[in-house]
Amino acid sequence: MFMKNDFFGKDVISVNDYSREDLELLFSRTNEMKKLVEERGGDERLKRKMMAALFYEPSSRTFSSFISAMQRLGGGIIPLNGMTNTSVAKGETLEDTARVFSAYVDVLVIRHSQAGSLATAAKYCSKPIINAGEGATGEHPTQAFIDLFTIKKIFGRIEGLHFLIIGDLAHYRPTNSLMMALTNFKNITLTLATPKQVPIQDYVRKFLKVSKISFSETSEFDKLLPEVDVLYVTRVKKEYMSESLYREIQGSYIVNNSLVKKMKKKSLIMHCLPRIDEIDKEVDDDPRSVYFRDQLQNGLYVRMALLDLVLNKD
Amino acid sequence: MFMKNDFFGKDVISVNDYSREDLELLFSRTNEMKKLVEERGGDERLKRKMMAALFYEPSSRTFSSFISAMQRLGGGIIPLNGMTNTSVAKGETLEDTARVFSAYVDVLVIRHSQAGSLATAAKYCSKPIINAGEGATGEHPTQAFIDLFTIKKIFGRIEGLHFLIIGDLAHYRPTNSLMMALTNFKNITLTLATPKQVPIQDYVRKFLKVSKISFSETSEFDKLLPEVDVLYVTRVKKEYMSESLYREIQGSYIVNNSLVKKMKKKSLIMHCLPRIDEIDKEVDDDPRSVYFRDQLQNGLYVRMALLDLVLNKD
Amino acid sequence: MFMKNDFFGKDVISVNDYSREDLELLFSRTNEMKKLVEERGGDERLKRKMMAALFYEPSSRTFSSFISAMQRLGGGIIPLNGMTNTSVAKGETLEDTARVFSAYVDVLVIRHSQAGSLATAAKYCSKPIINAGEGATGEHPTQAFIDLFTIKKIFGRIEGLHFLIIGDLAHYRPTNSLMMALTNFKNITLTLATPKQVPIQDYVRKFLKVSKISFSETSEFDKLLPEVDVLYVTRVKKEYMSESLYREIQGSYIVNNSLVKKMKKKSLIMHCLPRIDEIDKEVDDDPRSVYFRDQLQNGLYVRMALLDLVLNKD
Repeated sequence: MFMKNDFFGKDVISVNDYSREDLELLFSRTNEMKKLVEERGGDERLKRKMMAALFYEPSSRTFSSFISAMQRLGGGIIPLNGMTNTSVAKGETLEDTARVFSAYVDVLVIRHSQAGSLATAAKYCSKPIINAGEGATGEHPTQAFIDLFTIKKIFGRIEGLHFLIIGDLAHYRPTNSLMMALTNFKNITLTLATPKQVPIQDYVRKFLKVSKISFSETSEFDKLLPEVDVLYVTRVKKEYMSESLYREIQGSYIVNNSLVKKMKKKSLIMHCLPRIDEIDKEVDDDPRSVYFRDQLQNGLYVRMALLDLVLNKD
Repeated sequence: MFMKNDFFGKDVISVNDYSREDLELLFSRTNEMKKLVEERGGDERLKRKMMAALFYEPSSRTFSSFISAMQRLGGGIIPLNGMTNTSVAKGETLEDTARVFSAYVDVLVIRHSQAGSLATAAKYCSKPIINAGEGATGEHPTQAFIDLFTIKKIFGRIEGLHFLIIGDLAHYRPTNSLMMALTNFKNITLTLATPKQVPIQDYVRKFLKVSKISFSETSEFDKLLPEVDVLYVTRVKKEYMSESLYREIQGSYIVNNSLVKKMKKKSLIMHCLPRIDEIDKEVDDDPRSVYFRDQLQNGLYVRMALLDLVLNKD
Repeated sequence: MFMKNDFFGKDVISVNDYSREDLELLFSRTNEMKKLVEERGGDERLKRKMMAALFYEPSSRTFSSFISAMQRLGGGIIPLNGMTNTSVAKGETLEDTARVFSAYVDVLVIRHSQAGSLATAAKYCSKPIINAGEGATGEHPTQAFIDLFTIKKIFGRIEGLHFLIIGDLAHYRPTNSLMMALTNFKNITLTLATPKQVPIQDYVRKFLKVSKISFSETSEFDKLLPEVDVLYVTRVKKEYMSESLYREIQGSYIVNNSLVKKMKKKSLIMHCLPRIDEIDKEVDDDPRSVYFRDQLQNGLYVRMALLDLVLNKD
């Protein structure tokens, strides 16, 4: 089946810009990339193309998988893990910085602390911007793509699954993107369990309420565990809250073996990492835990696929 | 016409080491690079060559355009945007550091806070050093090359033009290099307008006074605007002065639409960026403003040409 | 002679994992790399392979030579000179970080402040980890490989030589590795001269005492100089001690021309750099000083050889 490449030459800022068909194209290209890496490590399809990775906030996975992805496809990199030694130190705005880098590269991958800033920067930038995580309350669309690809690869489908997402959802951009992206699929049940101080962002709640998703919020999730297909655990994002709030909610949801033994045999335990203490290490070896396996590994393949689709028309 | 490559294997530290013929060779190679990038993104002429980018001071444009340039020509990079995590932290001198990197690479691109330090380092370093900006009071020769190339490309010549350079010229290395490089061309008129606290460096003034340039300094420039061909705006370099001096002179020269409307239709508004508030955003879209267009973009082509000339004899 | 590659697919954490035969294989491959770089700059044998350089502590030589080595063999890089902008800032453990990067690369080169941490991380990491310097009291095996290769290349042998190592040996990982690696060779005499506050680590002393090396410790070394074949000078590692201890021992051993003139004509003055004041600059030009020549330069060739052996079976 021929699929139109709606990613070509465009920014990747919000999951809401993509249809079910777009996601299927991305997943299909991701499968090709997985095969390519496993068989040959990569190829030369992005030769003489350049990617700037501009990370205003700390990153390990997103930064390194994009850097690896670009080079595995033959492209070059401007790797800036931290922007303090750039003109940002002299007071340059994100708009101006994006415009500058766009003169030298073919695509910009940007992580920034301000939700909404990338859409503004994109207006001034002649090259595609890929959102690598934006603001405490914004989106992290490529992580959602990875999560969906991982789930589909294992379950064979996304439709009909029950998702339970737990933790600090007030400051968690990857799950903001994941939840909104789930509205592309049928018969999804989505339950959120958060400490009352850190509920989901209002704009996401509103988005979900007008969707066809079966959506509910709770503060206790133990009894749901036998029903869920996907348990998604999130980190309490200390860097985005006061020390006192952190002390209040830290450790409120700790996932350990005694909890996950309630889950179905065919289910998934996900986390987009880093994990601090919210998943006990004893859970790492559970066969349903994919956070150090497929979910992590697919980060490379999805980002290779995305760079390919954004930079190559065919 | 065959032109001898006087760049091959040599340091690029001061514009004063180059003749008019050298500059023409560089411009000619830059035109080739522009065509190469536009048609094919780059080539492999620097394959298996390595460039270390050692930036002791913040940089966006210079750093990223060199990093992109090297890779677009097939070369490899050691990208150090900030030197605080190197042996500099252990007290190593620039001489020793340059000697160390020269063992592993073919060319070193260095930005350093101390004027004169690169010439000293070059004595100990077996590989060419390219000055990527040196000291508050020193030079930034590659920016001058970019500025001259941009002007020549648009006007078809540099001879006979009237340059007005405004702002904090006490701490502005790009224009130090530009002004001295202008002495290679005939019938140049050069007017400087600065707050009285931050005049041009003495060594540059002396250099200009013994040259054939028609040179003058003023503190008011409005009435000159109808005559000038090139208005070059500079940033008040806060990082090199006291807070009190900054407050005194900040905002003394703000270029906006009501000023630039006095300029000729065929003239240029230049700035080597970053800009803070010294050029109002409303000027960005003026067709004579090249700072986010040719002047920025040519940074890539000029630096590709320079790396090629320094590393390849023919 | 066919030599079995015991490096392939394995971690490189301690010199004690290598036999004399392993070292000979490494030296033989290093000679090939030297020839390769001198003749052609490199080749493509690591094409589509990726190396992450994760440096938790400052580095110039080790970082840059690995980065250059990987690219000269056609491979790609994730260059992190400083880890403060990664998930380390969010509290991620080294084990988790190593596991993460292993999903995206083929080999990890790690410098870390905690002796013993790499062996722990390696248990969780599916890709080889190369120790690029570990802890104040740990090892720096690749520097020892470089030192041995350099000595063998110049003397034609390592057997039978007299080594004098001076300085702060309580905090010097390169010489920890060098001394232990010397036990692979016959008839070695090893004398250490240290300020009494900073003697060699106990675990190294014990290792040497049960070996066949002729080993002694002293605090005066002048009279030994006429006998030694290799004088190895080390830096007082200020970053690992109190300010008061630093003031006590700083400058206790300064090597200058009046000292080295006592040495044999055929002998070597070594230092793995950076040097602060423990070797006077006047010694740099002595023909026996190899620290800015072979010892520095061989860093590239040895690390190319090591990457090749770890990543390619044949």
